Amino acid sequence: MTERIHNFNAGPAALPIQVLERIREELLNFQGTGMSVLEISHRSAVFERALNETVARLRRLMRLPDDYQVLFLQGGASTQFYMVPMNFLSAGDVADYVDTGTWAAKAMKEAKLLGHQVHLAGSSEDRKYSYIPENINFSRDAVYVHLTSNNTIEGTQWPEFPSTGGVPLVVDMSSDALCRPVEVKPFGLIYAGAQKNLGPAGVTLVIIRQDMLDRVKVNLPSMVSYQSHAAKNSMYNTPPVFAVYVVGLVLQWIEETIGGLEAMERINREKAARLYEALDSHNFYRPLVEKKSRSLMNVTFRLPTVDLEKEFVSEALAEGLGGVKGHRSVGGCRVSLYNAVTLEAVRDLTGFMKEFVRRRG
Amino acid sequence: MTERIHNFNAGPAALPIQVLERIREELLNFQGTGMSVLEISHRSAVFERALNETVARLRRLMRLPDDYQVLFLQGGASTQFYMVPMNFLSAGDVADYVDTGTWAAKAMKEAKLLGHQVHLAGSSEDRKYSYIPENINFSRDAVYVHLTSNNTIEGTQWPEFPSTGGVPLVVDMSSDALCRPVEVKPFGLIYAGAQKNLGPAGVTLVIIRQDMLDRVKVNLPSMVSYQSHAAKNSMYNTPPVFAVYVVGLVLQWIEETIGGLEAMERINREKAARLYEALDSHNFYRPLVEKKSRSLMNVTFRLPTVDLEKEFVSEALAEGLGGVKGHRSVGGCRVSLYNAVTLEAVRDLTGFMKEFVRRRG
Repeated sequence: MTERIHNFNAGPAALPIQVLERIREELLNFQGTGMSVLEISHRSAVFERALNETVARLRRLMRLPDDYQVLFLQGGASTQFYMVPMNFLSAGDVADYVDTGTWAAKAMKEAKLLGHQVHLAGSSEDRKYSYIPENINFSRDAVYVHLTSNNTIEGTQWPEFPSTGGVPLVVDMSSDALCRPVEVKPFGLIYAGAQKNLGPAGVTLVIIRQDMLDRVKVNLPSMVSYQSHAAKNSMYNTPPVFAVYVVGLVLQWIEETIGGLEAMERINREKAARLYEALDSHNFYRPLVEKKSRSLMNVTFRLPTVDLEKEFVSEALAEGLGGVKGHRSVGGCRVSLYNAVTLEAVRDLTGFMKEFVRRRG
Repeated sequence: MTERIHNFNAGPAALPIQVLERIREELLNFQGTGMSVLEISHRSAVFERALNETVARLRRLMRLPDDYQVLFLQGGASTQFYMVPMNFLSAGDVADYVDTGTWAAKAMKEAKLLGHQVHLAGSSEDRKYSYIPENINFSRDAVYVHLTSNNTIEGTQWPEFPSTGGVPLVVDMSSDALCRPVEVKPFGLIYAGAQKNLGPAGVTLVIIRQDMLDRVKVNLPSMVSYQSHAAKNSMYNTPPVFAVYVVGLVLQWIEETIGGLEAMERINREKAARLYEALDSHNFYRPLVEKKSRSLMNVTFRLPTVDLEKEFVSEALAEGLGGVKGHRSVGGCRVSLYNAVTLEAVRDLTGFMKEFVRRRG
């Protein structure tokens, strides 16, 4: 294709066109350094400023209290799956995990691999992860409670977070960070791979509260310890400079172009409402999750037959609507509505969906 | 500055201008997908092809035998410092380390942190790491021997690798990978952060021999185990798509524009010869390392006074010669001559150096 398409991929995913154009514009000479942002030293004043501005912008957008520190690490959420238990659990400690989908289960598996005691506090596996469980059975003495705020593959999202009676929440927000304002106080640690709502693949946002930093275990490999990264402002080793730079541009776009997280949430709710309405208004598409657990970010549904699903995906692409195929483990279709996906893209998609029913329904 | 400068940074570092221009050209629409390379799915056919082509190109360039696998991971060499001992050492095992500088010492420290038995087989710490040691005292039963092939901060490089009597070499090639052809057979594992000779910060090259893969310990966190990454062709989790893409372009440049590693070495030797000649021909600059241990990649030297060093660095930058300040732990000046640094850049630098001596010497 010679033109850009609407990108509904589940991650890596759409970026705001303004961000892409800005990257292109300054790619050969970053802020008058005479070097590309791909070539500048992470120890240069110009990068340190970009990093610090990005952190400050995130603090403003999320209204982070002073006792939270923002880190940019590598290795994705999958690396957090083992860093979290390695940093916080000692022999005999228990951690609570709630199993709401593929990624939540993987996080739990990694903690178990390390030999830790993991308590399954809740699960929706019984009905194919099609809902967010309500009756969570927390242990009395858990060091933390691990949740996955949005389940990318299944299409569910916690509408609100459960009360844990003071036990710190550790939450994987990879697929819904910054889609809406969140009260961060219950969270001891938030992590998110950037490649959905925040930027390109290759950088992981970690937000950690001081009391959690204080309880990090000693004698961990330096790269595994949150303390090493926090002590050096994410520069314990060479950070992924370019990815951090792009995250900075995305946050700038959220703050200055969109107008902050309340505005972002309004847009996201409108996008999701239009798409779910299109799904519900035809007796043709079959949404896969319970209404009250529906995700704002990943919308999963099936069509009457697998053949129709294939045609739907390929005809959509021909119309410039890309990435609507479901995850191989679930099948069907999945439309991701991350922050950078525009209302116009959703309008074009729902138009196509209506037309598809007319022809094939 | 409105113009690009010559970039002698130690890493992140210069990239070939042809690579930067290509990135810019296709930034908004990668290979007709209608999406930026920053937005494409790592599971897309177009990315899998790019990844496989990059691996194939590396295999050709390095003439890798069939029993070596190429991985692209995250976390830099610092992550390899703990992955290596975690993957290969069990209780009671010994690993040999040779301490030739700051990074070699850090690699050793991380193995010790994990409680492993580390044998210091050689060191040049006695004379400020100004040489590569010759009499290495290998242990009888080491699982591996760890070396740092080029010492970025100090400016030394192994001219050839020591014979270990069959014990696999594990080598950090972060700052000299692909600067010259290397006979890979003695290596059980090679790793290199990309941000010097291979691409941008944010991706780590790992080359691992099958017998090493076979001896990886069980019950490691999935992201720590080389087996997980090898089994999934570097796609166990979302890889740093953009960084891998840029590495692919850099390898293409080495193969097609430069003409392979023999040609790359000739150019690198000429660049280094010109610079060392400029240092040696004036009784003014004081190279910091022994002649036979001199690095092709990082050239370290002092000037008669710290004030002159400061003037040298700032006047060089005013002439469009950036990044010549030494590492804070060594002081003085350091000029990095990575693959993407041109002969023209070195000519301009040596011209400036001559002129600087004329005015200040």
